[in-house]
Amino acid sequence: MLFTSLQINRPKTQDNPLSLSLNRVLAEDVVAEVDLPRFNRSAVDGYAVKAEATVGATQFEPKKFKLTDRSVLDAKHAKRVWTGNALPRGADAVVMLEDTKEVEAEVEAWAPVTPGENISKRGEDIRKGSTAVEAGTRLRPQQLGLIAALGFDRVCIFELPKIAILATGNELVALGNRLQKNQVFDANRLVLASLCRELGVEPIDLGIAEDSVAEIATKLRIGLQRADAIITSGGTSVGASDVVPDAVNNVGKPGVIVHGVAMRPAMPTALAVVKEKPILILPGNPVAAMIGFEVFARPLIFRMLGLRQAEPRFEVQARMNRGIATSLGRRNFVRVNVFRKDRGLFAEPISARGSSMISTMTRANGYVVGPESIEGLEEGESVTVQLFDFVKVAD
Amino acid sequence: MLFTSLQINRPKTQDNPLSLSLNRVLAEDVVAEVDLPRFNRSAVDGYAVKAEATVGATQFEPKKFKLTDRSVLDAKHAKRVWTGNALPRGADAVVMLEDTKEVEAEVEAWAPVTPGENISKRGEDIRKGSTAVEAGTRLRPQQLGLIAALGFDRVCIFELPKIAILATGNELVALGNRLQKNQVFDANRLVLASLCRELGVEPIDLGIAEDSVAEIATKLRIGLQRADAIITSGGTSVGASDVVPDAVNNVGKPGVIVHGVAMRPAMPTALAVVKEKPILILPGNPVAAMIGFEVFARPLIFRMLGLRQAEPRFEVQARMNRGIATSLGRRNFVRVNVFRKDRGLFAEPISARGSSMISTMTRANGYVVGPESIEGLEEGESVTVQLFDFVKVAD
Repeated sequence: MLFTSLQINRPKTQDNPLSLSLNRVLAEDVVAEVDLPRFNRSAVDGYAVKAEATVGATQFEPKKFKLTDRSVLDAKHAKRVWTGNALPRGADAVVMLEDTKEVEAEVEAWAPVTPGENISKRGEDIRKGSTAVEAGTRLRPQQLGLIAALGFDRVCIFELPKIAILATGNELVALGNRLQKNQVFDANRLVLASLCRELGVEPIDLGIAEDSVAEIATKLRIGLQRADAIITSGGTSVGASDVVPDAVNNVGKPGVIVHGVAMRPAMPTALAVVKEKPILILPGNPVAAMIGFEVFARPLIFRMLGLRQAEPRFEVQARMNRGIATSLGRRNFVRVNVFRKDRGLFAEPISARGSSMISTMTRANGYVVGPESIEGLEEGESVTVQLFDFVKVAD
Repeated sequence: MLFTSLQINRPKTQDNPLSLSLNRVLAEDVVAEVDLPRFNRSAVDGYAVKAEATVGATQFEPKKFKLTDRSVLDAKHAKRVWTGNALPRGADAVVMLEDTKEVEAEVEAWAPVTPGENISKRGEDIRKGSTAVEAGTRLRPQQLGLIAALGFDRVCIFELPKIAILATGNELVALGNRLQKNQVFDANRLVLASLCRELGVEPIDLGIAEDSVAEIATKLRIGLQRADAIITSGGTSVGASDVVPDAVNNVGKPGVIVHGVAMRPAMPTALAVVKEKPILILPGNPVAAMIGFEVFARPLIFRMLGLRQAEPRFEVQARMNRGIATSLGRRNFVRVNVFRKDRGLFAEPISARGSSMISTMTRANGYVVGPESIEGLEEGESVTVQLFDFVKVAD
């Protein structure tokens, strides 16, 4: 949404060992400096031959070849090859093992092959000079394999963005300490840090600040020195206790740009920029913080990583198993549990009320976006569910 | 498949800081020792009141309350609360901020509330004594958040399995070295290690072995000492150069159980057990190694992680954009690129021949399983595509 129009500097690049580059984002195209395969090779286990010498071969009238180990072949010879072996010069096909029989120093071919059959031709995988992997691609195991096969042991990747995380609230107590009356444990720093790690970013922890403009401003200044972006939770509401937006505006220009978003949950979310660095101000309610991260931080971090394309959540179409009211004029993020019934997928809304219930996030396996223009999702209505990672859609 | 019937010991458990447990697998149920929320609290910004005192309130005939800061409330008083604040004793509802107006030391309520309205009741999220997260669950950000909210700063998780990886083949050269004629760079160790890392396992590198039973056996023995399972690549074919199966059989009992699997690619895959540890013997062709890992190693590792359920790949239904021949009598893993056209999803098969082309894995965004009973997938045929991670189904 808003941050998508924010100017983001192209991340810095670094030269990195390929073996340490899993899930990093490639900064420069990888261009093949060699053909792959580098030489004509056998695609099967069998015997390399000149194809023309196999014409008419059958099990009853096999063609016979003398076995050789030489690297040059004529029409009278065949060479034993395993999958991946280089073909001898002169050979243009391979008879598969199961279509042959070795008899002393000879081999019988029981079936003809055509030129090129059972061969991987030099350059058929990747041609020298062509782009093997484009800049902006996240390096998955298969890309690493291709780059390794091309012989590169280092790649140019983007540096990781630095994201700082701050939780605010007088009621918050860090895990491992004792609660006083009316206090709660701070879950948000761990949740937001984990959501960053999921995207491949190790966050910077700014700790917990009390609801004090001065204390929050101090921590924000540290964050701006050390990080490229800051995510806060708590201290923002709709037209009331706005200690974090106030602190952000104290720290620098332009400060808060948007305060309050027509969505539910996470309505009090604010978006700010200070010293050209984005600051995402999320509500303190853990569910709202998670949904706010999903909507605003995730696409922002994808851009800061240098990815060519945002990575989508997987979607499924399902029918609402039960109706649920939504807020007219707001975009509603309804947690649902998708399950299979009578060969169709159904989405059970998790908890109509109580966006603050963190268990709604663990009981759901995805969410449905209910648009601003409606007052609810109806039973039987077809919806698109954004699935959480690693989820199982139960049978 | 076969390994699913293998007896796997329950992994050992470890006590771990919650903050370092992202994506680890919970070994014991997390049972709530407190109610969550711990106290009745406001779900909105507004004024805590006794609901009965708001009956009949309208904007024209508001009900008036004296403001108080006390922790006990009667019907004449209201207390300012922010989202998440504890309710004062005696209060049973909250009037939302937008339905109120503060006038000096009083607040006007413009709308009635019913008992329980805009309140999160103690225990409504999780009740003391109930199971918050089940053993065998991978700890995602939302589970970490719930466990943190419950006040646990440590969890009992399963130890990670130790997987050792060995590449074999005279033709292999480790990345960073120079190639001689007819040699190729070893891509498989990096690919297989990366596939393990994707599942949360840091593998043990056994290096590259030449095609020698003695050398391979030595490395396998090291692997059996240090790891819970071994994955090899290369040195296995169908009824021919079987240096790895031979080495495995030299190392211990029962040795190779299955050699050759009715699938394509990865037909020469072999499955072995030595000293109760599984050994997965994959072909050297990088595509076959990746598909073999997908089919055999992935479900094995899910079980070794202690996961209650294997994590499925996301699936989509698509129609074949083009027909492709498959091998009768074998399960065919056809790489495809799924794309959207005319509001439907279509799967373009990537490369009919040449299972050895590693670029087929980078150009595809998923695969289709073509069953043993057919000779091909037809144009227009409806297929289920298993999607690779992080893929974009292009519009």
